[in-house]
Amino acid sequence: MVGCVFISIGFRFSEFIAKDHLVDVTLAIDAMGGDHGTAVTLPAAVEYLKQYPRDSIILVGNPDTIKANLRTLGVDPVDGPFGVRLRVHAASEVVGMDEQPQSALRGKKDSSMRVAINLVKSGEASACISAGNTGALMATARYVLKTIPGIDRPAIASYLPTKKGQVCMLDLGANTDCTAEHLLQFAMMGATLVTALEHKPNPTVGLLNIGSEDIKGNEVVKQTALLLRASDLNFYGNIEGNDIFNGVTDLVVCDGFVGNVALKTAEGVAKMMGGFLKEGFGQNLYTKLAALVSLPVLKAFKHRLDHRRYNGASFLGLKGIVVKSHGSADVFAFRCAIEKAAEEARAGMWQQISVHIEKWHHERQNTPQGES
Amino acid sequence: MVGCVFISIGFRFSEFIAKDHLVDVTLAIDAMGGDHGTAVTLPAAVEYLKQYPRDSIILVGNPDTIKANLRTLGVDPVDGPFGVRLRVHAASEVVGMDEQPQSALRGKKDSSMRVAINLVKSGEASACISAGNTGALMATARYVLKTIPGIDRPAIASYLPTKKGQVCMLDLGANTDCTAEHLLQFAMMGATLVTALEHKPNPTVGLLNIGSEDIKGNEVVKQTALLLRASDLNFYGNIEGNDIFNGVTDLVVCDGFVGNVALKTAEGVAKMMGGFLKEGFGQNLYTKLAALVSLPVLKAFKHRLDHRRYNGASFLGLKGIVVKSHGSADVFAFRCAIEKAAEEARAGMWQQISVHIEKWHHERQNTPQGES
Repeated sequence: MVGCVFISIGFRFSEFIAKDHLVDVTLAIDAMGGDHGTAVTLPAAVEYLKQYPRDSIILVGNPDTIKANLRTLGVDPVDGPFGVRLRVHAASEVVGMDEQPQSALRGKKDSSMRVAINLVKSGEASACISAGNTGALMATARYVLKTIPGIDRPAIASYLPTKKGQVCMLDLGANTDCTAEHLLQFAMMGATLVTALEHKPNPTVGLLNIGSEDIKGNEVVKQTALLLRASDLNFYGNIEGNDIFNGVTDLVVCDGFVGNVALKTAEGVAKMMGGFLKEGFGQNLYTKLAALVSLPVLKAFKHRLDHRRYNGASFLGLKGIVVKSHGSADVFAFRCAIEKAAEEARAGMWQQISVHIEKWHHERQNTPQGES
Repeated sequence: MVGCVFISIGFRFSEFIAKDHLVDVTLAIDAMGGDHGTAVTLPAAVEYLKQYPRDSIILVGNPDTIKANLRTLGVDPVDGPFGVRLRVHAASEVVGMDEQPQSALRGKKDSSMRVAINLVKSGEASACISAGNTGALMATARYVLKTIPGIDRPAIASYLPTKKGQVCMLDLGANTDCTAEHLLQFAMMGATLVTALEHKPNPTVGLLNIGSEDIKGNEVVKQTALLLRASDLNFYGNIEGNDIFNGVTDLVVCDGFVGNVALKTAEGVAKMMGGFLKEGFGQNLYTKLAALVSLPVLKAFKHRLDHRRYNGASFLGLKGIVVKSHGSADVFAFRCAIEKAAEEARAGMWQQISVHIEKWHHERQNTPQGES
C-alpha cells in the first residue's frame, strides 16, 4: 500500500542523539515479513544490537528458521554475544505479501506479524517493525492495539527529502475517503511526531492543495483549512505538490489517496531520471570515461537520493508503536526502520499523541460556541 | 491552476507530419497573456509562421503595443513578409495573472483572452492559445464556447514524459470534486485526443489509484472502474503514481485534484534532483572539470527533460479548441503550444470528441438494462 520513496536525503535522527543517554528499548521484529524475510531482518537486527548496546530485540517467527539463520551469522541465540538482549519468540504462520487484510486478521492469529504486535500490546516490547503486507499490518495493529481515544483513524506517516532537508507527510495510504476532521487529526499526530523526533517545538503544517489561495481545492480541503486555522497548530496554509520538495513546511497533510499518489509519483519521476542519467553515462566508451571522471559527483548524488536511509513508515494513532519497512528493503534499509521505531519508542510517541489529542478535545469542549 | 511539468521528453507531434499535406489553420493568440506577454507571444508567432507557410495567425491585444513590437522583430503588420497570414485584432483589456475567474468573466469583456476565444466561437480562428490565467481562461472558454452535449465538465489534458515515450493525463486541475461519470467522460475525451494526435486507434486507459487491485481506492475510483470496464474504451485497469512514468498506459485518468498534485509533485522532484546534480558538479574545480568532460551526457539529459517541448495543455470538452501555455513559457515553449493547438485544429479535435460522446450516449440508451 505504501511505497518507499526512491529518493531520500542522508539524514538520520539517531545521529543527533548521544547513545549513552538513550532510554533502553525492546523491539519486536516480524522476522518473517517482507520480500526477503530472515535474509534481511536477522542481519539488520544483529547490526542494530551491535550499534545500540543497551537495546533488546525479540525476533518473531519460525524458531528453527530463525535460529539456523542466526547461526550462519555467527550468532548463537542462547550463548551468543547478545545474551538476553536477543530473544526468539515462536509464531507458526506468515502473512503473505498479497494476502487480503481481513483474511490475515481472521485466519492467521499466530502469524509473525500478529505475534510481534501482541508483544507491543502486552508491554513486552515498546515497538514493532514489519516489512510485511501493509494492509494486513494496519488492520491487525488496529485490531490488537486499538486507536487512541479521540482518533477516528490511524494514518501512515513518512519522511521525504526536500531541497532544505526533509519533510514529514501523512496520510500515505491508510485512508482513502477522509473528512476534514480526519485530516485535522492527521495534522495533530504528524505535528507531534515532528516535534518529538526533530525537536521542533512548533512545526509548520502545510495542507496539500492545488493552489495557495483559500478558494482552491475540493470541499474537504477547504473545510480542513478552517479547522486547522482554528486549531493550536502552526498552520502555514495551502501548499502545492512542488512545495513538498521545496521544504516549505515541516509537515504536509493530505488524505491517503492523494498522499499515496504523490509519494509514488515522486518515486516514479526519481527512478525515470536516474535511469536517463545511467543510460546517458553508459552509452559509449567516451561517456563511460566521463562517468569515471564524475564518479565523486555521481556517488554523492546517489547517496543524497538513497531511499534506504529513510525507510520506515510510522503508523500513527494507535495505542502502540508500529513501523512498516518497505517490503523490498535490504539490510541497511531495514536497520533504518528499526532505528526509527526505537526513536519513536524512546520519545513515547503514542502517549504524546494521546496527550495532544486529549488536550485539544478538552479545549474544544470548553470553547464557547462561535469563538473558534 | 495547472503547472507545466518541469520534465518532458523531446517528442513533438509535428515531426511526424509532412508539412505539405497539412490542412491550413488560422490560430488566435492571446498576445498579452502570460508572465512575459508580447515579448514571448510575438516572436513565437513569427517563428511559427515561418515554419508553417500555409497557416495564419491573429494576434489579439493592444494594437499599438503589438504593432510596435512586431516592428522590432522586423515584421511589418501590413506589408510584412506574412501578408494576410498575420493579422492584429484589437482588445482593450488584459486579464491579470492572479485575477479571479469570475471577475475576469464579468468585468473584462474586451480582454485579449476573451476576444481570442470569441474568434474561435465565430469561426474566424480554429483554435486559440493563451499563456494567461488558467482559471479565467477555463471560465471564459466555457462561457463563450459552451461544453459539448453529453459532457458535464471540460477537463485539462497534457502530456508527460515516460521511460518509453509519453503519456497523456487528465484532469490536471479543472475539476476538484468529480463523480465516476465525470471520470468516464474524461477518459473518453482523453482517448479521442490520443487517437487523433498519436494515431493510436485503441489507446490503453489507466485509472490512477493507490493499488492495482479492484478493491483499492476511494468510492469514486471504484465506481469509475466499473464504468470504464463497461465502456468501449481499452481499459487497462488501475495504475499507481509510479506507473505514470513507467509508460504502462497511453492515457491516465484522475480527478483534477489528484492530477494537479501528481503533476506538481513530479515537477518538484525533477527540479530538486536537477538542483542536486547542478550543485554536485559546481562544487569545486575538479567537479567543474568533470562537468566539462560530461557535457555531452549532461546536455542530452537536459534536452530529454526539457519541459518546454511539451508546453500546451488542452482544454477538452468545449465546442472549440483552447490550448493553455504555461505562464512563464519562453519563445520556444510558446511556439510548441501553438503547434499543439494547430495539430488539434487539423485533427478536428472537438468534433471528434463530440462524435465519440454522442455514439456512446446512443449505445447506452439502446443497451437493455443489466447488459452492461
